[in-house]
Amino acid sequence: VKNIKPRTLKGFRDFLPEKAKKRQWLIGELRSVFESYGFAPLETPALEYAEILKGKYGEEEKLIYEFETKGKDKVALRYDQTVPLARVIAQYENELVFPFKRYQIQNVWRGENPQKGRYREFTQCDADIIGSSSSLSDAEILMLALNIYKKLGLSVRIKINDRKNLESLERKYISAIDKIEKIGESGVLKELAEKGLNDEAAKKALSDLQSKPKTQRIEEILVSLEKMGADTNLIDYEPTLARGLDYYTGMIFEIVSENYQGSLCSGGRYDKLIGTFSEKEIPAVGFGLGFDRTLEALEQNNLIPKDQNNSKVLVTIFSKDLLDASLETLNELRSNNISSEIYLDSEAPIDKQLKYADKKNMPYSILIGPKEAEENKLTLKDMKTGEQDTLALEEVIKLLSGNRTQYLI
Amino acid sequence: VKNIKPRTLKGFRDFLPEKAKKRQWLIGELRSVFESYGFAPLETPALEYAEILKGKYGEEEKLIYEFETKGKDKVALRYDQTVPLARVIAQYENELVFPFKRYQIQNVWRGENPQKGRYREFTQCDADIIGSSSSLSDAEILMLALNIYKKLGLSVRIKINDRKNLESLERKYISAIDKIEKIGESGVLKELAEKGLNDEAAKKALSDLQSKPKTQRIEEILVSLEKMGADTNLIDYEPTLARGLDYYTGMIFEIVSENYQGSLCSGGRYDKLIGTFSEKEIPAVGFGLGFDRTLEALEQNNLIPKDQNNSKVLVTIFSKDLLDASLETLNELRSNNISSEIYLDSEAPIDKQLKYADKKNMPYSILIGPKEAEENKLTLKDMKTGEQDTLALEEVIKLLSGNRTQYLI
Repeated sequence: VKNIKPRTLKGFRDFLPEKAKKRQWLIGELRSVFESYGFAPLETPALEYAEILKGKYGEEEKLIYEFETKGKDKVALRYDQTVPLARVIAQYENELVFPFKRYQIQNVWRGENPQKGRYREFTQCDADIIGSSSSLSDAEILMLALNIYKKLGLSVRIKINDRKNLESLERKYISAIDKIEKIGESGVLKELAEKGLNDEAAKKALSDLQSKPKTQRIEEILVSLEKMGADTNLIDYEPTLARGLDYYTGMIFEIVSENYQGSLCSGGRYDKLIGTFSEKEIPAVGFGLGFDRTLEALEQNNLIPKDQNNSKVLVTIFSKDLLDASLETLNELRSNNISSEIYLDSEAPIDKQLKYADKKNMPYSILIGPKEAEENKLTLKDMKTGEQDTLALEEVIKLLSGNRTQYLI
Repeated sequence: VKNIKPRTLKGFRDFLPEKAKKRQWLIGELRSVFESYGFAPLETPALEYAEILKGKYGEEEKLIYEFETKGKDKVALRYDQTVPLARVIAQYENELVFPFKRYQIQNVWRGENPQKGRYREFTQCDADIIGSSSSLSDAEILMLALNIYKKLGLSVRIKINDRKNLESLERKYISAIDKIEKIGESGVLKELAEKGLNDEAAKKALSDLQSKPKTQRIEEILVSLEKMGADTNLIDYEPTLARGLDYYTGMIFEIVSENYQGSLCSGGRYDKLIGTFSEKEIPAVGFGLGFDRTLEALEQNNLIPKDQNNSKVLVTIFSKDLLDASLETLNELRSNNISSEIYLDSEAPIDKQLKYADKKNMPYSILIGPKEAEENKLTLKDMKTGEQDTLALEEVIKLLSGNRTQYLI
């Protein structure tokens, strides 16, 4: 075993505690908003019959991880959460309540090129409403997305369009126009020319599109959003927004943040896809929130609470014969719902114990030496300022029972 | 696509909302106890280089899902969380704080026989302390396990032993004694005989073991547990408890609940395993909590809160021209942190809307008809009793802001 190098596969990541805590915090925030809007969780297996996934992702299909099991099943790893959702809708139609509002936060696997900075395992976070074609559902989805970022404290804007605006255009031209953010108007015109439109026709196609007024559907959605209390100033109508090719059939949107390159969340209405495994069309609207990107934007903007779920206090052990006093203190603290640890070696020097508290970002430590034990008191040390005070247990409990980030005076 | 049957692989499960909510609730409860004890989350990839997992699981190795990727990497799906932990310890030794207290709640995959009711994908929930050999760590792990079940409200007992008690016995005999719960003393004696001990020797081996007093280590652990506030009446010393063969090196334990067959959680000290990828021995103690089994035991004992995270109220839409009033009410409710939904079709009959609220177990619905709109009031209906009352918005907010399960008088 010694010559097996401990390493992770390219494009795959370990999340050590500091990072994993942030991820768990974000998942908790997302769940709470989803659930307050009546979206319920769904979990599907990591492995599906390969035939369920095949023929659904176009050219990207080659990125699916697939293999044959020892039992000769042809299987594939979850590639997104939409195809499994379509399967679930067909498989359990009679057990689900429609409109079906579900969210799903699971990992997906794609054989991407890690050299482009892409991950091969990443967390997807989707919310969808299945079985409703109303503009209210479109508004609800936008409201949900807006409120997630509001709750997270990140200022964002929404770009919105109706795929119907692009109906008269050929697919190859749409894919060029979709890049307008990245390559600018001149870039789009150049690409349209390369794809067969002459210069004049390209200019006309683009300017026709840019001057398209809001569709009635978009107007309806915006009115609903306003009544729902959305800040409609954050919503930009952008008739050139295209968002992919075959997928969307109605409203489409994308959420961006001023200080962050690219979109954080995107989605829209897709009425042709969910019925794939059923024998009928099933309307759907939803979004995929970029979990890694959103976490990164929050980090950049210092919007992740510090010392997330760290223990509040380390009870040190002065010496083996004073261990009982420390254990009893630990019990009292934990019984009072104060996240506490004891140093797990009754013979370690106090310095080493304090270093542990420091490395784990615990705001306080407690010392119970012979003097404290005799007086039935504790010495509470503020790890940040170094200040310390000898107090009765009740006083310490009172002091530590407050907010997570409460410090000594 | 129409002829592809929507189905899940044998041994794999979809979790629809009602079940997924329970799972998420349990994960939340577990996380909160882990973190209050200073255990931090770790996440490792679903895929590892196959060589990392190979040679670690003995005969069970054949159950690993392994395959070659298109990029010719030989990979395997996570089989447990202990081998990845051992890899992490070796790979990031300098970044981690020791003793390293981590918990991990992720899925693992095993090509089990689904006919035996075994799952091929299931959630593991592990907590371990790495890098401490003290009996305090053993006590901390037991305390953590006990307190998880205490928080969950499930009454449990712990069986505890020291693997050292079994040191003098051959491995083949230990595996027989390990079955004492299942097959009884006579069964063990029979199996010992089959494995080569004569009748008298078998009886002596068993009775010698049964009369072994607590080791000094077990005594120390029990003293610490008592000082930490554990109810030591819940702890049974069982010198015949064996728990597997090669894995454990010291204290071992198993948690059982009176009303539930088999163990809910088990673990112990294993000082030889974590150093696998390092060039040294690294002491470790921890447990694996049976996630599915614990959830099942909680369900059987009615210990899962009902209507977990359901929306509290459905705002119905009386008619399209009264839509605005409903949207504005929805906004007010959500602004006051009341989980609310609006029915997502402004033309659906009220009956259908109420049926939706009922199916989703929402305790209340709100109706705003022409009369209510004129008087600037709402009709609040208790979905359980059918009682309804016409109230001002502020009164409704006050009423719904209380506990989740608050009902009308």
